[in-house]
Amino acid sequence: MARDERRSPGEELDIDRAVNAPRIAIEHIEPQVCGGRFAAKALVERPITVTAVIFADGHDKLSAQLKWRPVDGAHWHSAPLLHLGNDHWQGKFVCEEPARVEFVVEAWMDTYLSFCDELGKKFSAGIDVEVEIMEGEALLRQVARDETDANTEILQQFAAAVARDSPSKNKVELLLSKEVVDAMRRAESRPHYIRSNSLYLEVERRAAEFASWYELFPRSTGADATRHGTFADVVKSLPRIREMGFDVLYFPPIHPIGVTHRKGPNNALCAGEGNPGSPYAIGGDEGGHDAIHPQLGTLKDFLALVTEARRQGLEVALDFAIQCSPDHPWVKDQPDWFRWRPDGTIRYAENPPKKYEDIVNVDFYAAGSIPDLWLALRDLVLLWVERGVKMFRVDNPHTKPLPFWEWLIEDVRRRHPEVIFLAEAFTRPAMMARLGKLGFSQSYSYFTWRNTKDELQHYLSELNQRPWRDCYRPNFFVNTPDINPYFLQKSGRAGFLIRAALAAMGSGLWGMYSGFEICEAAALPGKEEYLDSEKYQLKARNYAFDGNICAEIASLNRIRRANPALQTHLGLQIYNVWNDNILLFGKRTEDLSNFILVAVSLDPRHAQEAYFELPLWEFGLPDDAAMGGEDLMNGHSWTWFGKIQWMRIEPWRLPFGIWRLTRPKREV
Amino acid sequence: MARDERRSPGEELDIDRAVNAPRIAIEHIEPQVCGGRFAAKALVERPITVTAVIFADGHDKLSAQLKWRPVDGAHWHSAPLLHLGNDHWQGKFVCEEPARVEFVVEAWMDTYLSFCDELGKKFSAGIDVEVEIMEGEALLRQVARDETDANTEILQQFAAAVARDSPSKNKVELLLSKEVVDAMRRAESRPHYIRSNSLYLEVERRAAEFASWYELFPRSTGADATRHGTFADVVKSLPRIREMGFDVLYFPPIHPIGVTHRKGPNNALCAGEGNPGSPYAIGGDEGGHDAIHPQLGTLKDFLALVTEARRQGLEVALDFAIQCSPDHPWVKDQPDWFRWRPDGTIRYAENPPKKYEDIVNVDFYAAGSIPDLWLALRDLVLLWVERGVKMFRVDNPHTKPLPFWEWLIEDVRRRHPEVIFLAEAFTRPAMMARLGKLGFSQSYSYFTWRNTKDELQHYLSELNQRPWRDCYRPNFFVNTPDINPYFLQKSGRAGFLIRAALAAMGSGLWGMYSGFEICEAAALPGKEEYLDSEKYQLKARNYAFDGNICAEIASLNRIRRANPALQTHLGLQIYNVWNDNILLFGKRTEDLSNFILVAVSLDPRHAQEAYFELPLWEFGLPDDAAMGGEDLMNGHSWTWFGKIQWMRIEPWRLPFGIWRLTRPKREV
Repeated sequence: MARDERRSPGEELDIDRAVNAPRIAIEHIEPQVCGGRFAAKALVERPITVTAVIFADGHDKLSAQLKWRPVDGAHWHSAPLLHLGNDHWQGKFVCEEPARVEFVVEAWMDTYLSFCDELGKKFSAGIDVEVEIMEGEALLRQVARDETDANTEILQQFAAAVARDSPSKNKVELLLSKEVVDAMRRAESRPHYIRSNSLYLEVERRAAEFASWYELFPRSTGADATRHGTFADVVKSLPRIREMGFDVLYFPPIHPIGVTHRKGPNNALCAGEGNPGSPYAIGGDEGGHDAIHPQLGTLKDFLALVTEARRQGLEVALDFAIQCSPDHPWVKDQPDWFRWRPDGTIRYAENPPKKYEDIVNVDFYAAGSIPDLWLALRDLVLLWVERGVKMFRVDNPHTKPLPFWEWLIEDVRRRHPEVIFLAEAFTRPAMMARLGKLGFSQSYSYFTWRNTKDELQHYLSELNQRPWRDCYRPNFFVNTPDINPYFLQKSGRAGFLIRAALAAMGSGLWGMYSGFEICEAAALPGKEEYLDSEKYQLKARNYAFDGNICAEIASLNRIRRANPALQTHLGLQIYNVWNDNILLFGKRTEDLSNFILVAVSLDPRHAQEAYFELPLWEFGLPDDAAMGGEDLMNGHSWTWFGKIQWMRIEPWRLPFGIWRLTRPKREV
Repeated sequence: MARDERRSPGEELDIDRAVNAPRIAIEHIEPQVCGGRFAAKALVERPITVTAVIFADGHDKLSAQLKWRPVDGAHWHSAPLLHLGNDHWQGKFVCEEPARVEFVVEAWMDTYLSFCDELGKKFSAGIDVEVEIMEGEALLRQVARDETDANTEILQQFAAAVARDSPSKNKVELLLSKEVVDAMRRAESRPHYIRSNSLYLEVERRAAEFASWYELFPRSTGADATRHGTFADVVKSLPRIREMGFDVLYFPPIHPIGVTHRKGPNNALCAGEGNPGSPYAIGGDEGGHDAIHPQLGTLKDFLALVTEARRQGLEVALDFAIQCSPDHPWVKDQPDWFRWRPDGTIRYAENPPKKYEDIVNVDFYAAGSIPDLWLALRDLVLLWVERGVKMFRVDNPHTKPLPFWEWLIEDVRRRHPEVIFLAEAFTRPAMMARLGKLGFSQSYSYFTWRNTKDELQHYLSELNQRPWRDCYRPNFFVNTPDINPYFLQKSGRAGFLIRAALAAMGSGLWGMYSGFEICEAAALPGKEEYLDSEKYQLKARNYAFDGNICAEIASLNRIRRANPALQTHLGLQIYNVWNDNILLFGKRTEDLSNFILVAVSLDPRHAQEAYFELPLWEFGLPDDAAMGGEDLMNGHSWTWFGKIQWMRIEPWRLPFGIWRLTRPKREV
């Protein structure tokens, strides 16, 4: 019954198909990703807005609705689509549970609505409507004839009433009455009914879009750099991390580390005695991806850490790095998962220009890998999920096959819809977007290299627009073990505050790698890498370091939790400030009940001042209106009067301002 | 064998499908209209550019190509796709004949290209490549093993040569040699081959995008307004029209006109004695859409006119108006093609707020209409095609069903690919675009109501962008019998020149309704309609009227014919001119061999002057470069020096300038 629009223009449209082809056009349904090939991103509890362009020939009125259900659900829910004008329609619905959701748009010609519209207008204009009344009666009878249920009788009674001798006025009133209109609606007579193709949403739990990530190397939580830290040491660090307001605690790989070609400090080709090696060289005599590095503790210790972290409000995220040290058990046990070179070796990993001599990669398309390797990798994820890990940061997903990710994520999420995958890909835009389309809940981003006002404005805006907004959630990491940003190497403490504010306010997802909070920035000369990187050696830090920014980080995370507008990268709008060193943007909830204005000076050294536009128009207010402001970093409140305002930012105090805007109560 | 990307995210991706799913991604293929649901517009002889985003995991090199064929053709043509960088690929091809064309994008991993790239780099860097050489030999043997043809032997010989004892340098040179690379390419080993969905192009003859239309009422070509003009009179008008440079001559309906409810002068509800009625009230005792109004002449006269027009370089276009006067033979002969009201009448036509009491409409979905009415209408078009008419202006297509047009146009064009349909729809944007998607070659546009610089800039630019550029060709009519633009009612002669220049330069298609060339503008007071409209009465004009703009129109059409850049609405770019009364735009062919700069003052009364930017950068020239200019309206030539230039436009002389830019010959 449902006719949809699918048809390839290469097929001949014969007359039989033509007369049965849909009369109504449905176009531009949003959200959709690649024409419906992928699911668009959505969240539980947040209204999902669907828009479409719907029209037909002639002047008849159309009606339309939205229908949706979880893909494994039998029952369809429906929501009305409202005509916004100019053929644009909009509807909304909310999902309570994480699931893959299917939705369609339906439309039909609303004959009776068209009739009522015309009848009402003509009657009001004093035009004779005798014939129209007869047409109305015929419409009622027609629909009653097609109906079989209890409604039939009601419609026939109305038709009979219209037919009876009485003044036109009474008949018109009856035909336009709510009772008749409702009965006609119940009859669901839907001439020229059309239904769109199914489109899909991946509805995830809120942490997919709102979370503050903190990364640390568990082995560096020992009292000093001579002692290998343990999961028990990590437990001791939890209060410090939680006080800063983070809610995700992410560890680089915690598995045994190989010894063959083990890297030494600062990526030295040969490790010295006692060097721990890179945790990314996964696997050794003690086991592979399913095992735990013995010096970190036992599985029991890990489970205890996960439990205690959760008790304190922190969720543990693990690294999923599909690579092996040459000592990984798979190299011996599953040799046909690797591609061997003619000289009997396996090629080591490269991510040009970087070389990883201590790592070999599996070959996803080797004859022996299909499907065993794929299944083994999926089972590894499931194993850690069973151990209580529901978040995975995936290392370099763009160097593994796209269909592998699509399958793995779908498979895992069908069993555990709460699992979240973060893509650690730094590559070209098409691949960045594609990973999101395939199912990664969130992704590393270009944020780390967006420093100027122009760069930031462009990037923050782009992420709010289609196609990005439907397929990609950016996790703004201010640093990572691999990225010691040039800006921070020279910026001093104010620079760290600048980047923290940009990340924490710019996106619902932000991340920090330990050391940032004490403004660590010593670099390999000329490189964007840390000196004495923890990737290759143990490290001990004094987090009570004078000049740390822990309190400011705690404030940022506190403000994020208190303000829904800050719990997503969406709803961001750039505003005018007449100074190229100051970025000004707003974040708002759709209903404007929460509106935050963020001003960040990008200059860590000098005071900057400027006039700026207070976005009164967003509230429908005139340029001379009053607006309440509250500084969320220090609690001060005030009232602004008028659109043009002035600010001064002194980076040695605080290089940014975060202001909540509130419509002042109307004075009576 | 061909794997494409189609998959709905609602389907489960099991492991077998996953390992066989395409490894390579192809996205954003352009042109495509509504995800391939409709054919994109293209022209014979003009290169068709196809772009796509193509990428895969990892660092292997990809190769890609474009394949295309007429939908009824067996043989595929192919063209290479070149990598422009950042995963963007581009290819071009040309069609010689009008046809519906199918195309696909194919990609695969180019293993040997990746190998050569790495081998060359390593060898140049002095790295030992013994293992790489062995890998190269293995690659040759591998491909030879999969091959069965003559190429096999060649590849085996190369492999053997690589295996022989000789210096590495020789082996590397052999592996990288053109002979080996070509043999490998011939072998067409294409791991991870993927092919896109088919997409479609409607390739039409050039007049679909480049033509100058002239509209007249044949009955008004008599010597005076008392004598009904004839086709023989039209023949006498041909030289005058052709001298102005038009190439399409379009007539409103030429069929018999009904007498019931015939309209009188100025849309009077009742015609007086001898009033000819509206030609849109089609059909009477003398026949319907297949007949010719007896006062215009016979079919023989019409055929003679078509032939003589063609001899003089004018193609005749007819109106296809699907509506009937109450006296149309169908009303009696095919009563079940109409919807009868309860009082035994047929509702007259409305196009709110306009009422057409002298017209009734067929009902496309009446039980009796399916499919007879649809076939009858198609046959009418075919009848007139057989009578030599290859262009149809379709009246109000947006009030007839969309599938009807899609079917009719496809059916007619499959038999006669040269037939052109012009959609006369003035309605909301989605419908305007949809009619183009369904197959209308060209369309009336909003041009008539775009008057200010801002409006014109926006509209001209929008038509150059997707989705419009792929589905919609605008025919810029400066006036029509239904539209006497407010601007022209008050502008005087200069205003007519302004609108003619904007239309003729802005689009490859422009149109004029007779009277425009003598600046006719008398209006029904307060309305955008002509006083004493020809729609309801005979009219006689003195085309030799002093102050006519025939010479300027002739120049515009001459310039259009001489400059390929002006033969399309595409390739238009707005440029800076610091005066809100002057619009400045450029039109260029893709190769820049033809570059026209058009400046139009929008002020018909006062002189306007301004500095403007000469677009030297488009030619890759610095801001201080020299550029040749030629005024195409008067033949003057000069050289500009530098980017910032000045202009002055005096509307009483000529309110616009048309300059051809030519790169000055380099001095030796």
